[in-house]
Amino acid sequence: MRDMMAITARPEVISLAGGLPDTSTFPPETFAAQMDRIAHSSVAEVLQYGPTEGLESMRSQIVAVMGEEGTRVDATDVTVTTGGQQAIDLITKALIDPGDILICDAPTYPGAIPTFCSYEADVIQIECDGDGMRIDLLEETLAELAAGGRRPKFIYSVPTFQNPGGVTLSLERRRRLVEIARENEILVVEDNPYGLLRYEGESLPTLYSLDGGSYVVYLGTFSKILSAGLRIGWIVAPTPIREKVVLGKQAADLCTSTLTQHFAAQYFKDGRWLDYVDDLIGVYRSRRDAMLGAMSEYFPHGATWTRPEGGLFVWATMPEVINTEDLLAKALTKSVAFVPGTSAYVDGRGTSSMRLNFSGVTEDRIIEGIRRIGEAAGEQMFLYETMTGEMRLPPLDSDGGAG
Amino acid sequence: MRDMMAITARPEVISLAGGLPDTSTFPPETFAAQMDRIAHSSVAEVLQYGPTEGLESMRSQIVAVMGEEGTRVDATDVTVTTGGQQAIDLITKALIDPGDILICDAPTYPGAIPTFCSYEADVIQIECDGDGMRIDLLEETLAELAAGGRRPKFIYSVPTFQNPGGVTLSLERRRRLVEIARENEILVVEDNPYGLLRYEGESLPTLYSLDGGSYVVYLGTFSKILSAGLRIGWIVAPTPIREKVVLGKQAADLCTSTLTQHFAAQYFKDGRWLDYVDDLIGVYRSRRDAMLGAMSEYFPHGATWTRPEGGLFVWATMPEVINTEDLLAKALTKSVAFVPGTSAYVDGRGTSSMRLNFSGVTEDRIIEGIRRIGEAAGEQMFLYETMTGEMRLPPLDSDGGAG
Repeated sequence: MRDMMAITARPEVISLAGGLPDTSTFPPETFAAQMDRIAHSSVAEVLQYGPTEGLESMRSQIVAVMGEEGTRVDATDVTVTTGGQQAIDLITKALIDPGDILICDAPTYPGAIPTFCSYEADVIQIECDGDGMRIDLLEETLAELAAGGRRPKFIYSVPTFQNPGGVTLSLERRRRLVEIARENEILVVEDNPYGLLRYEGESLPTLYSLDGGSYVVYLGTFSKILSAGLRIGWIVAPTPIREKVVLGKQAADLCTSTLTQHFAAQYFKDGRWLDYVDDLIGVYRSRRDAMLGAMSEYFPHGATWTRPEGGLFVWATMPEVINTEDLLAKALTKSVAFVPGTSAYVDGRGTSSMRLNFSGVTEDRIIEGIRRIGEAAGEQMFLYETMTGEMRLPPLDSDGGAG
Repeated sequence: MRDMMAITARPEVISLAGGLPDTSTFPPETFAAQMDRIAHSSVAEVLQYGPTEGLESMRSQIVAVMGEEGTRVDATDVTVTTGGQQAIDLITKALIDPGDILICDAPTYPGAIPTFCSYEADVIQIECDGDGMRIDLLEETLAELAAGGRRPKFIYSVPTFQNPGGVTLSLERRRRLVEIARENEILVVEDNPYGLLRYEGESLPTLYSLDGGSYVVYLGTFSKILSAGLRIGWIVAPTPIREKVVLGKQAADLCTSTLTQHFAAQYFKDGRWLDYVDDLIGVYRSRRDAMLGAMSEYFPHGATWTRPEGGLFVWATMPEVINTEDLLAKALTKSVAFVPGTSAYVDGRGTSSMRLNFSGVTEDRIIEGIRRIGEAAGEQMFLYETMTGEMRLPPLDSDGGAG
């Protein structure tokens, strides 16, 4: 993974591997104006330590941003974190003791797995389909655990435009998940980095708003709607959990950058941030469409993929004979990268799948990247057929995609 | 502790509790000029994710800053962290398994203790005197441990202008500590936030430079020579440790803010940063002197304190009858705060001691704060004497201080 990061940093490589937002269209004059205001009024403050739970101005703007998605929270329940990754880290640190059970999506956010493992959680993954986590399977798992006298510490999910699946938990399943949490007194950790990045379809209520914040802890981030370079995320949690989170944060990094918080608080207070999100939505929708179109054209027959209504990722599954870790090695020789599916599971599943990012790369490079991956896949299949001496699969054609 | 933070944030409270740098003299025009350059050249870059190990430009400036203190390191050994606190957190995470032994100063940096405890380290503290950690006691402890078949995972120390003691490890002890590390193949983690803030006396070589980086891991921060609000620190460690640190950082917060790194890299490259450090040295020297003078005037007979040649802290020990946690409660009613000594120990020691910060408060407020603490201490002693019916200690006078 580390070596791959070094390779994907080379400019000639088309990386569909990361989860990078597009920052090329952020107006330099907006940046300059914000910083000019800080220079003239708050230099001493932005260079100083801030409170561990975050600046009050930042917390109240987080409340406003969440309000845009219809989620009402109390600023006192908000803890500012150093990006969304720290939000996952701190909530896991607060809730998990070694050996505790943690339930999450299958596949799940690849970056959460090392965090869960670092706290020695016993991770159980529940299969997703086109409507997100299979809540029927979740109920079965909870019943099995209960029969053995066990229960999970929490259920972690990205219900909206899931990373890596691109799928969205249906309203019916959201309602049932929140009910299950309440019935069983189990916490749900809702990670929602992409909720405001919807390219089609109707918005769904967050789990937090359906539950009212009793059993749902909410994780947010500005990485995808403003900037990943600021490293600002947040956790919304009731007092007993929040206090543990704040103590954990104090030990981890004392506080999140006062400078970046001040910048973000000012930016969101200005109120024009939704125009920028609209711009991003336009850019990302076109990129998603370019990716889906190229997959139909270049991916082998038998491949399937999701069709996300928002977010940053498509999840593709190749014909079973293709191992996507091998495919990645070949793809890298063609200067294109993706995240192999096994990264999204704790148990080695996902061997024929891959996560593809469309937010961080221009349309022509997306199309060229998908073409090269398709070419590499074709070569892998040809090799397989040659080795097994059979033509068990139809040849490449342009009719590859499932919806 | 959390409640105290809320109290000390009130403007009428004179807080000698924190470790706040003075940021009031940082030139706004320098801030504005740096941000203007970023606005005109690098907005898309500073808003984007960066590499987990830090920006190359930042790592090379860290090498230059360490060079000013006579410590030569290789940029590839540097990992940028989200402040010095994260440096402590990540090195502990990388090296400690539950139950592992960790040796540190007695007293030690209060903020390190929750971090050490969160990884379930078995912390052993070695007494300090005016020349820093008692290396003879360290050797005794190592011998005792070895006799029981045990050895520490690492020795954590702030050898220069120690937090909280204000004391500095002598050259002879530095040499011996590095020898011991080599002889016993034990890592030393040298935390050096204050090395460049020397107000008198001659500079001493860092442990890292005496050792050459074989057994010494170095932790640094810009919090005290530029800004705590940027949240930039670093770890210098050989490859096997660095790789574990980087994996740990990836799980913790992916990367440190690209914006604040970019700002700092530019700032240090400009080369005028030493002028600002000189300004800080002037400010802090006067504040230290104001504190030491006020202590001589207002602290009770029998109190002793350190006389730091640099850094941010004085460590004071009251007559034994005074419990500084009780004293703090009384001091807070007089709107003045300090850190009670027990915060610097894992085992309840330090009951008559306190850490006093002089960097973050103006001279007149330092003097007034020390006066009020002295007054509170006098009241505590009077109460004790009344309760015990004896005058076992001489009355308050102005001849209090030990050197």
